[in-house]
Amino acid sequence: MTADRKPKVGIVMGSRSDWETMQHAAQKLEALGVAHEVRVVSAHRTPDVLFDYAENAAERGLRAIIAGAGGAAHLPGMIAAKTAVPVLGVPVQSKALNGMDSLLSIVQMPAGIPVATFAIGNAGAANAALFAAAMLASEDADVAKNLEAFRRKQTDDVMAADDPRIA
Amino acid sequence: MTADRKPKVGIVMGSRSDWETMQHAAQKLEALGVAHEVRVVSAHRTPDVLFDYAENAAERGLRAIIAGAGGAAHLPGMIAAKTAVPVLGVPVQSKALNGMDSLLSIVQMPAGIPVATFAIGNAGAANAALFAAAMLASEDADVAKNLEAFRRKQTDDVMAADDPRIA
Amino acid sequence: MTADRKPKVGIVMGSRSDWETMQHAAQKLEALGVAHEVRVVSAHRTPDVLFDYAENAAERGLRAIIAGAGGAAHLPGMIAAKTAVPVLGVPVQSKALNGMDSLLSIVQMPAGIPVATFAIGNAGAANAALFAAAMLASEDADVAKNLEAFRRKQTDDVMAADDPRIA
Amino acid sequence: MTADRKPKVGIVMGSRSDWETMQHAAQKLEALGVAHEVRVVSAHRTPDVLFDYAENAAERGLRAIIAGAGGAAHLPGMIAAKTAVPVLGVPVQSKALNGMDSLLSIVQMPAGIPVATFAIGNAGAANAALFAAAMLASEDADVAKNLEAFRRKQTDDVMAADDPRIA
Amino acid sequence: MTADRKPKVGIVMGSRSDWETMQHAAQKLEALGVAHEVRVVSAHRTPDVLFDYAENAAERGLRAIIAGAGGAAHLPGMIAAKTAVPVLGVPVQSKALNGMDSLLSIVQMPAGIPVATFAIGNAGAANAALFAAAMLASEDADVAKNLEAFRRKQTDDVMAADDPRIA
Amino acid sequence: MTADRKPKVGIVMGSRSDWETMQHAAQKLEALGVAHEVRVVSAHRTPDVLFDYAENAAERGLRAIIAGAGGAAHLPGMIAAKTAVPVLGVPVQSKALNGMDSLLSIVQMPAGIPVATFAIGNAGAANAALFAAAMLASEDADVAKNLEAFRRKQTDDVMAADDPRIA
Amino acid sequence: MTADRKPKVGIVMGSRSDWETMQHAAQKLEALGVAHEVRVVSAHRTPDVLFDYAENAAERGLRAIIAGAGGAAHLPGMIAAKTAVPVLGVPVQSKALNGMDSLLSIVQMPAGIPVATFAIGNAGAANAALFAAAMLASEDADVAKNLEAFRRKQTDDVMAADDPRIA
Amino acid sequence: MTADRKPKVGIVMGSRSDWETMQHAAQKLEALGVAHEVRVVSAHRTPDVLFDYAENAAERGLRAIIAGAGGAAHLPGMIAAKTAVPVLGVPVQSKALNGMDSLLSIVQMPAGIPVATFAIGNAGAANAALFAAAMLASEDADVAKNLEAFRRKQTDDVMAADDPRIA
Repeated sequence: MTADRKPKVGIVMGSRSDWETMQHAAQKLEALGVAHEVRVVSAHRTPDVLFDYAENAAERGLRAIIAGAGGAAHLPGMIAAKTAVPVLGVPVQSKALNGMDSLLSIVQMPAGIPVATFAIGNAGAANAALFAAAMLASEDADVAKNLEAFRRKQTDDVMAADDPRIA
Repeated sequence: MTADRKPKVGIVMGSRSDWETMQHAAQKLEALGVAHEVRVVSAHRTPDVLFDYAENAAERGLRAIIAGAGGAAHLPGMIAAKTAVPVLGVPVQSKALNGMDSLLSIVQMPAGIPVATFAIGNAGAANAALFAAAMLASEDADVAKNLEAFRRKQTDDVMAADDPRIA
Repeated sequence: MTADRKPKVGIVMGSRSDWETMQHAAQKLEALGVAHEVRVVSAHRTPDVLFDYAENAAERGLRAIIAGAGGAAHLPGMIAAKTAVPVLGVPVQSKALNGMDSLLSIVQMPAGIPVATFAIGNAGAANAALFAAAMLASEDADVAKNLEAFRRKQTDDVMAADDPRIA
Repeated sequence: MTADRKPKVGIVMGSRSDWETMQHAAQKLEALGVAHEVRVVSAHRTPDVLFDYAENAAERGLRAIIAGAGGAAHLPGMIAAKTAVPVLGVPVQSKALNGMDSLLSIVQMPAGIPVATFAIGNAGAANAALFAAAMLASEDADVAKNLEAFRRKQTDDVMAADDPRIA
Repeated sequence: MTADRKPKVGIVMGSRSDWETMQHAAQKLEALGVAHEVRVVSAHRTPDVLFDYAENAAERGLRAIIAGAGGAAHLPGMIAAKTAVPVLGVPVQSKALNGMDSLLSIVQMPAGIPVATFAIGNAGAANAALFAAAMLASEDADVAKNLEAFRRKQTDDVMAADDPRIA
Repeated sequence: MTADRKPKVGIVMGSRSDWETMQHAAQKLEALGVAHEVRVVSAHRTPDVLFDYAENAAERGLRAIIAGAGGAAHLPGMIAAKTAVPVLGVPVQSKALNGMDSLLSIVQMPAGIPVATFAIGNAGAANAALFAAAMLASEDADVAKNLEAFRRKQTDDVMAADDPRIA
Repeated sequence: MTADRKPKVGIVMGSRSDWETMQHAAQKLEALGVAHEVRVVSAHRTPDVLFDYAENAAERGLRAIIAGAGGAAHLPGMIAAKTAVPVLGVPVQSKALNGMDSLLSIVQMPAGIPVATFAIGNAGAANAALFAAAMLASEDADVAKNLEAFRRKQTDDVMAADDPRIA
Repeated sequence: MTADRKPKVGIVMGSRSDWETMQHAAQKLEALGVAHEVRVVSAHRTPDVLFDYAENAAERGLRAIIAGAGGAAHLPGMIAAKTAVPVLGVPVQSKALNGMDSLLSIVQMPAGIPVATFAIGNAGAANAALFAAAMLASEDADVAKNLEAFRRKQTDDVMAADDPRIA
């Protein structure tokens, strides 16, 4: 299993309930053969763990960190504040405001500390994983090949079944 | 000057440009005789300073921290994550989204770590100061008296000039 | 039961239907050992009761008032207009606009009369209670101890179960 | 001047700065011959004056109250809570949120206490006055005649100059 | 039944599906003894019926028209364009945008043609009826008495059951 | 069946899941006797197919293209960029943001390349079809007749059943 | 001048102040050689003129009507309700809500009566004209040629000056 | 000058007017020593150029593409559809909707084709450049060193001037 190798990508989330969304990132990395790890790290409830995690990310070999959070989503931005490892933010859909709060809390970072932000919810989690894979593809031929195959397949799937009236 | 005494309230902001807004908090504390300090502390550019500030707040005698920030405003929530001292958040009006991003980033905190949030911009900064003063009023008779006088005066001012057609 | 002692915190709400949300404030105060009371007081249907409640709050010994309301939520702001006791506002999630109307009606107070506002819904109710407890902690060692224990426990809980793939 | 007669309509606003908007209501009432009065009454800074004003409105002969306010605009709803005289609410355009907060704070009243709400800003103020005049027209032939003339004139004005390329 | 007498208030709606909302207006008028009629009139599908209805409203004795519509809600504004009878608009909650489109389409009328707007959905329908009754109360002692009783009862109901923990 | 004749209108959508919405366009075209075709073409997953489709649309005889998409909905705009055939855009209701993202992504085209946009969801799909039929009606007497009959019928339906209290 | 020929396209707007926006439609039609007319017709102030205009549009030879309006923008939808001539709606940017109210009032039409909607402001006005021209291009070779030239030119212009650092 | 070397990053934008925003990306890349190129490529006006650019990006040696666009911003997503090179999207602030349309059009990509999105306006442009540099830092020691120096300097700058009252 790819998760057993030394992880290249860390998936972190602010709460266990975010796993329903963030598993889509894990599944995509798994399918693309990208070694990764998964952790619950809360910016608000475990800020020291967050700082440790971010400070050690580079030397532990992480090449990207996918961080998902909802509401006043501070996790991605605070990790980015503590490491030069690229951070990919996933806005988790929140109950009252449907993730608009999550999105703005993640994407509207001030100049100086970037967080690459993806769509609200499952699509964003999957796409963060695809983006991380694309970052690694330049130095990992297997990932590059897997990514290319994934993209070709999703193109073929649409083309093979382009009449929506046929189930 | 009240700022020379041991500060009871800390006013922090994410950027020097936030001072235009946050000075309204400082002015109100000054007028009410609440000893305070003012600092620029950036959640994203100086995260370690933020942690130090929050960790030492209680033992330094701070009874409340007023934190203002704009955009993906993480400062109030991250201070709250690191101290039991009550944190009052002020959403600074942002350029593109008029402070709606700042407001949601501050107010939508998850259960467990509260940030008391006030209005976007100058009114919020002033009100955070008034609220901090009200918190201290129970143990500081001078502040209580000043606060009562302030509220009576603002009532009297409206009553004394209630015809808007007379300049 | 903490609610039997002379209440330090009043929980009020505009309608019985708000109890589903506001009970999260009561539960947190109960758990933290903060004596409190619970009342339905409607700004629009019982304005005189609201005024009486607010006018007598200080002499009855209330140190904070947690007020929850939805839609055109006037309850927190009107209580704040009638008492110097700090008011904590909780925007109840409304049917059509998901609490965005409640939030703006509570948080956008003009300079002069502050309402400390928390997140929309259950998280906001819980956090208003935690904030009230933090205010009281400076003079009540038990509450301080309970609050510290609560925060330590929520940190430990995340750390003890930080792999979301293990149920 | 119509304002010298016993007023039928009261125009109230939360702050002197609202006069820039609310004068459009006064001008329309003046033009239509509706006796009226103008007052600054703040829900938050002079709540007792607000209650007095609302409680005495009916016996003072007011047939409608036009109330303008911005931000967390509680004035119209609180007047409506204290009198059976119809209340017409005007959302004043706010600085940060362009009056969306004012609008929602006024229009989203719970079932039981209505506030008739008009557009944000000057158009809303003018229309509240026209609506008040229409209410009075059923018992005041002069107002009815003036209102009819006003409507006919605004129709004629459009028809007489319907080519926008001719200045 | 009040609906059998010569109607004083017309309730119109853009579609049969709006009845789920607008019945709350009819029920309130019925309870308050206000004679009324109910019609489906579509601004878009039956524009000529709309014009006829509006043009004849005054001479048929209607004193107010309550118009409910959703989405691009043109019904209230177009009725108001064709009659001097006061028009009360009710934004029906729409599927995609939760009635925000309905609200803005009704409330943001240009200066010159007012529509008194109420809350989105059931509360708005009920309040439009209460407002219409308040308009008629000045000349109909029964309605005035019923309205007063209704308001007193809703106040008493809150006061009699102000502990939300007792079902 | 109309779909067997040489199609005049192409219905395309970004994903099979959009068919639930877009079938309302197909049904209306079918009912009005407008020959049409239906295809899944994804701007993001099959961009080359999209370009081919758009480039050949005119010579294949298409007179209008109805394109439905959700979220970051690029399909209608990109088709419009590649053909002079009029493009009608239908914002499909998205999960998190209820189609507000779809609407803005489609309607806010820069000057130079127009996309005629319709309402979010089923109503928009149906109306795009009606609009396409209206475009063709000037040269196809049958479509003109069918369209006129459709409009007359929907008017008659409202008029025949204008009391919503009778099921 | 093209405007002297029998007009094929009518440009109507709710107010003279909309001309600043709608002139962009007129300029584009002029440039493309599409005969057109320009009128101020207000849904609210001149509803009968609006009905006459719409009822006679088809027999007067209009093939499309471009209707611009702001705020509670009812003009496009009401014209569409009264004619089978295709209606193109342009949301004029409003003062308080930046045209979001105009957009929703125009685009969210119920199933049955379509309005083809374009972007808020000048871009939308220009694009409505381009769309109208595209509709006419199938039967007017000159317009088709002009439209093709316009599109080729705007492509060439971008390609000829694709380095933004060279003024 | 870094722009003379074989570019590693391409900066593209939909219109020359976007340069005011996108120059902040170019300045940051320049300062960090990242070779780059700058092009105006319009998704809507030059779709074929866009496809060519994206198709050749990988073999031309581009390691990231920063794409800025406003309104219905299709440029970043369409480039991403045509290349496996990572695409960084910058929402340019639009006139009417302040960039909310640009943001949603870029960030809400469906699962399968990711676009890493940054803040609206100048901050987003600068951060996209910083993110691109961070991606390249793993294989370019100079960029890594420059990036580290940049981050250390911005931290030092805040710490050296943390009293906002001293100009």
